[in-house]
Amino acid sequence: MTTQERIEESLTAEVVASFAGTADPRLKELLEALTRHLHAFIREVRLTEDEWTRAIEFLTAVGHITDERRQEFILLSDVLGASMQTIAVNNEAYGNATEATVFGPFFVEESPLAGDGGDIAAGAAGTPCWVEGTVRDTDGNPVPGARIEVWEADEDGFYDVQYTDDRVAGRGHLFSEADGSFRFWCVTPTPYPIPHDGPVGALLKAAGRSPMRAAHLHFMVSANDFRTLVTHIFVEGDPQLEIGDSVFGVKESLVKKFEEQPAGTPAPDGRALGDKPWARARFDVVLAPADLR
Amino acid sequence: MTTQERIEESLTAEVVASFAGTADPRLKELLEALTRHLHAFIREVRLTEDEWTRAIEFLTAVGHITDERRQEFILLSDVLGASMQTIAVNNEAYGNATEATVFGPFFVEESPLAGDGGDIAAGAAGTPCWVEGTVRDTDGNPVPGARIEVWEADEDGFYDVQYTDDRVAGRGHLFSEADGSFRFWCVTPTPYPIPHDGPVGALLKAAGRSPMRAAHLHFMVSANDFRTLVTHIFVEGDPQLEIGDSVFGVKESLVKKFEEQPAGTPAPDGRALGDKPWARARFDVVLAPADLR
Repeated sequence: MTTQERIEESLTAEVVASFAGTADPRLKELLEALTRHLHAFIREVRLTEDEWTRAIEFLTAVGHITDERRQEFILLSDVLGASMQTIAVNNEAYGNATEATVFGPFFVEESPLAGDGGDIAAGAAGTPCWVEGTVRDTDGNPVPGARIEVWEADEDGFYDVQYTDDRVAGRGHLFSEADGSFRFWCVTPTPYPIPHDGPVGALLKAAGRSPMRAAHLHFMVSANDFRTLVTHIFVEGDPQLEIGDSVFGVKESLVKKFEEQPAGTPAPDGRALGDKPWARARFDVVLAPADLR
Repeated sequence: MTTQERIEESLTAEVVASFAGTADPRLKELLEALTRHLHAFIREVRLTEDEWTRAIEFLTAVGHITDERRQEFILLSDVLGASMQTIAVNNEAYGNATEATVFGPFFVEESPLAGDGGDIAAGAAGTPCWVEGTVRDTDGNPVPGARIEVWEADEDGFYDVQYTDDRVAGRGHLFSEADGSFRFWCVTPTPYPIPHDGPVGALLKAAGRSPMRAAHLHFMVSANDFRTLVTHIFVEGDPQLEIGDSVFGVKESLVKKFEEQPAGTPAPDGRALGDKPWARARFDVVLAPADLR
């Protein structure tokens, strides 16, 4: 080991040791590990003092654009895949259980009850889309009474909460039936960009990356004795799936066929859709047990 | 490798690959390495979703307290030793060259010219202190005409720029003589806390760490053909050296004897100090060549 390597390693050891008196043992573990990884990064890339200054300026800009309506630190975590990696370590693969993906910032508590076969679009612009499926356990048994929360952007790429008129549209909840089945109307998801007029957008631009999210429909499925599933389904054939989802939320198992139905095709529930085309998709959910660890 | 390990590794690989189109090759290298280390941290500690949320909230608070007078991101970098590690990798050990340490936020361009033997205190409260030394190269040859910038807090722990009355005190510059020697008056440094009423202060408290910096006198020494040296000298016997410097700036080679002189002891330059005690310290500077890499 060179003198220089000894200096760098002993500095890291000194900082790690400074956290020895942390009262909360988990916080101690986090701070020690953060120190080791942060120092390893600086040492590996031989971070220059100018680059350090620019990193401080970048974080300062991220902090200053963040307010109650805009959370640039979450965007930063998203585009670095840190959000998705956190989801991954907290939702370990379990048999054939449905994979989880990012939660996103647009979930709202106490969404309207849509009921089985109801319409969660509630006026959101877009192509009507029928979604049906089942909720089962990993042994294939139906899970009745599972709470299914669904939310999505409209065809202009905006969630209801991004409008200033207090509308509630493109979100709702329902419960699986006795046989585990569920069905509802929504609108076919379309791709939209994450907010990209701030420092994170500038970072994406410098990296030649698209700010677009692949089209998706959000789900949160919860039932007693099961691990709550937060996930999306994506639209097979969406070109953004090839370009790349800006927050790395896509899992192949979550890409579903949204079959386009020409105008005049009868709807499964007899709904009168007039001369509009519509679409249908299927999503069979498999929940992992709550106590798998 | 388990399915879960494969999922986590392939996510990291996907995010790293997303930076492939970064135009600036150095930025590409930094983003790829940052991704790898950040993901390794999340995977190692199995970061919970609740901990992720608290990290986002912490960074948001750091962003919101930061303004033109307060730089909480620099404080955060400092207390995690990231600033000092950056200094370390940019000022590689070279023979007997004087070690560097943190720059700190209180340097000001165009400080007053103190001149050889001048007083940089300029009214700053504290015990008068005579500092003398030499500037040499690593072969022991004198370096004449080196610009020596000096700055320090007063005995109340504040730099001039922390007062609102535009005073200029406790800072100045001089040049080494033909034989490399220099000398000046200042005040004996005393320990002071970094700002600790914000989120970084809360972190130090949770970790049971002192916010105090060990007493120090800042130097920046520059000369043609030499690597600019940014460093401090510390005060031998300062109890904070044992407790720990909050920003990890201390190097054993930078701890100097500040010899207390009883009232009435004649000053080296004949200065009339009346009935005040004073102190004296010696700092021999060795500069590394500019082109050592």
